[in-house]
Amino acid sequence: MLNPTHDPARRSWVESANRPEAAFPIQNLPYGVFSVGDGSRRVGVAIGEMILDLAVLEEAGLLPPAAGPRVFDQPDINAFMARGPQAWQAMRARIAGLLDAAGSPLRDDPALRGRAMVPQHAARMHLPIAVRGFTDFYASKDHATNVGSLFRDPKNALTANWLHIPIGYNGRASSVVVSGTDIRRPLGQIKPPEAEAPVLAACRRLDFELEIGAIVGVPSAMGTPVTTAQAYDMIFGYVLLNDWSARDIQQWEYVPLGPFQSKAFATTISPWVVTSEALEPFRVGTPPRVTPLLPYLAEATPNNFDIRLEVAMRPTGVAEETAISHTNFRHMYYSAAQQLTHHAIGGCPMNVGDLLGSGTISGPTPDSLGSLLEMTRNGAQPLTLHGGGRRGFIEDGDEIIMRGWCEGAGYRIGFGEARGRILPAPRG
Amino acid sequence: MLNPTHDPARRSWVESANRPEAAFPIQNLPYGVFSVGDGSRRVGVAIGEMILDLAVLEEAGLLPPAAGPRVFDQPDINAFMARGPQAWQAMRARIAGLLDAAGSPLRDDPALRGRAMVPQHAARMHLPIAVRGFTDFYASKDHATNVGSLFRDPKNALTANWLHIPIGYNGRASSVVVSGTDIRRPLGQIKPPEAEAPVLAACRRLDFELEIGAIVGVPSAMGTPVTTAQAYDMIFGYVLLNDWSARDIQQWEYVPLGPFQSKAFATTISPWVVTSEALEPFRVGTPPRVTPLLPYLAEATPNNFDIRLEVAMRPTGVAEETAISHTNFRHMYYSAAQQLTHHAIGGCPMNVGDLLGSGTISGPTPDSLGSLLEMTRNGAQPLTLHGGGRRGFIEDGDEIIMRGWCEGAGYRIGFGEARGRILPAPRG
Repeated sequence: MLNPTHDPARRSWVESANRPEAAFPIQNLPYGVFSVGDGSRRVGVAIGEMILDLAVLEEAGLLPPAAGPRVFDQPDINAFMARGPQAWQAMRARIAGLLDAAGSPLRDDPALRGRAMVPQHAARMHLPIAVRGFTDFYASKDHATNVGSLFRDPKNALTANWLHIPIGYNGRASSVVVSGTDIRRPLGQIKPPEAEAPVLAACRRLDFELEIGAIVGVPSAMGTPVTTAQAYDMIFGYVLLNDWSARDIQQWEYVPLGPFQSKAFATTISPWVVTSEALEPFRVGTPPRVTPLLPYLAEATPNNFDIRLEVAMRPTGVAEETAISHTNFRHMYYSAAQQLTHHAIGGCPMNVGDLLGSGTISGPTPDSLGSLLEMTRNGAQPLTLHGGGRRGFIEDGDEIIMRGWCEGAGYRIGFGEARGRILPAPRG
Repeated sequence: MLNPTHDPARRSWVESANRPEAAFPIQNLPYGVFSVGDGSRRVGVAIGEMILDLAVLEEAGLLPPAAGPRVFDQPDINAFMARGPQAWQAMRARIAGLLDAAGSPLRDDPALRGRAMVPQHAARMHLPIAVRGFTDFYASKDHATNVGSLFRDPKNALTANWLHIPIGYNGRASSVVVSGTDIRRPLGQIKPPEAEAPVLAACRRLDFELEIGAIVGVPSAMGTPVTTAQAYDMIFGYVLLNDWSARDIQQWEYVPLGPFQSKAFATTISPWVVTSEALEPFRVGTPPRVTPLLPYLAEATPNNFDIRLEVAMRPTGVAEETAISHTNFRHMYYSAAQQLTHHAIGGCPMNVGDLLGSGTISGPTPDSLGSLLEMTRNGAQPLTLHGGGRRGFIEDGDEIIMRGWCEGAGYRIGFGEARGRILPAPRG
């Protein structure tokens, strides 16, 4: 039986949600945190060009459950996520009903509608989750191969473990910021190959990494592994993620304990969390296995998603963006469910609000790469941008914009944008 | 002028605090979180064999400031830490005054004393901080040299960056637990050198790592580096830390992005946070530099500490512990202040409740090593324990106990213990 929240024919009384190219139709209903003016942060759902203020609806008693502590008059969605998958499903069904063109108590109550509907252009978006842990993976075979070829050995580009382990490392949660936050170029230790000793300097090889972030909504207990099916169900939703990277700092620091300051200065995520339930119609399997995986990583269902992704770049003072990549999340060799299962296999407890970065999403073709490192061959083959600028890496004032969407039958499940602009480094 | 809280001659009316070997004399006053029976968690200070319940004193209006939100009727010390260094100093002076043998309103009020003094044996200790981020460093030159010799090249045991960078990586905050918590042996991917492919199995080379954890009490802003002097003052206090490690899992997973599941299953810390102020009389400089550090890591003051450390091991059913290491924190090549400065150099924001592990503390002699990996040469030279057991690595039921103290003139600043016992792995 079709889940009515996936019905492609369903329409909203919010007209801007019904355009074929709209990012936020009634089939999407992503959660975010916003404020208006000096008002407090609250949880809303994007619908067309509007935000539905869930704190207002909760106060009005229109949302399930009728009683209980409030979860939407909050600075993040963690309290709502902690209610668990049944509550997520009930809420999505209810919100879809309230926004349905066929009529609803919200549509038919102008006073309530006036308080509950906020134009997106009038709202400020905030980080949607309180990030408990941030883990970053490395799940694109094309990306791992490209990076291994550049920095290690083209003949053995993949390390021996890569086809067996969803390789990942712990990132820094404190520097995860919402789209639109300016990013300061980091200082760090850099040692040019020809130099005797390192210097402290502003990063000269600043890069982005196009990723999707999975948000954990169901915790796991310490000492307790989870299956891939359980892991899939533990994920509340997904966001776009830019894992800003300082390549020169990374190259000098990363042996033997992995990336640290080269990745710790900033990670940008999009403000709207697209739920796993909204993505359900777009599930696809991972690519064929090169070698068999260990049974604990096997998947009985397709746990990846067909998400189209774009990256654009725009220097300061240039009006027009330059599209520099078109790729798809479906290329990822490991699903988020496999990554989460591996994360918990040793007994590591997972928390509501954990963020798992997919790793850079690169496709098999030169126009589908997820980082400048790969596009420019470590700066050797600069890109030419609209306005005439040439870029091996990111310069001060440049803005990076990531977008994503699933293409449905006459509608889109949009992720919106993850954008960030680079400010000059502090004085060293 | 001598800070009166450091006066070696000062005595408490709590008699058990005045014994020369007492871990918690009036000169120490470490903070912890405890509960009694089914009662709620609250913040206390250890004094001799007792705990001073700060929530009771706060409610009675005996602690500065007289007004303001309460910080001790809390499940962690983060709210108190967030008040900042001046409040920490004022609180320490006031608590010392309340415990002073020369008399105090607490000593002289039997009813209040009865409510505020709790025997340690009647209390349950909890994790003292809400761990925001956990970062683990690698600051012992002896340890890094020993590990590099075992796993890489004895002639080039230290990586090229080690003498320039306080090498560190992000650890997993969710699995930091308090002393006394049983630890489940992790499952994980292991690939014996002779095998074609990895297997999923219980760790066979389970190890501890003796460390000191520094707790950040003053935040820093994103994009803003801090000096080593500022970093020293940002650290509220220190704990013992056991960075449990699965050597076989680590060996297969750690290239190229560093340790992940091999370290994520558990980290044990001691329950009492010894403040930087209590450690002030025990400041020592770091060892001589092999090569000059970059100026941002220079220290104008001695920022390391003279802390004596011991590790003991005890199999199930054996009454007597076996002491297996005696070492000192003063051997560390990088201070916690240098590590924190490096952590923030790229602009990574630091939070109240961040925990920085020092890295394994190994001294220059065979009896001063901080891990079984080094003591047994990766299992090749097993230890013999009281009761006759031989150990290359940790077996199920074994308990590891870490202790530490500073030796003052007639008194000790004790850290108490970080202990943990290994339970069998879950079924794979």
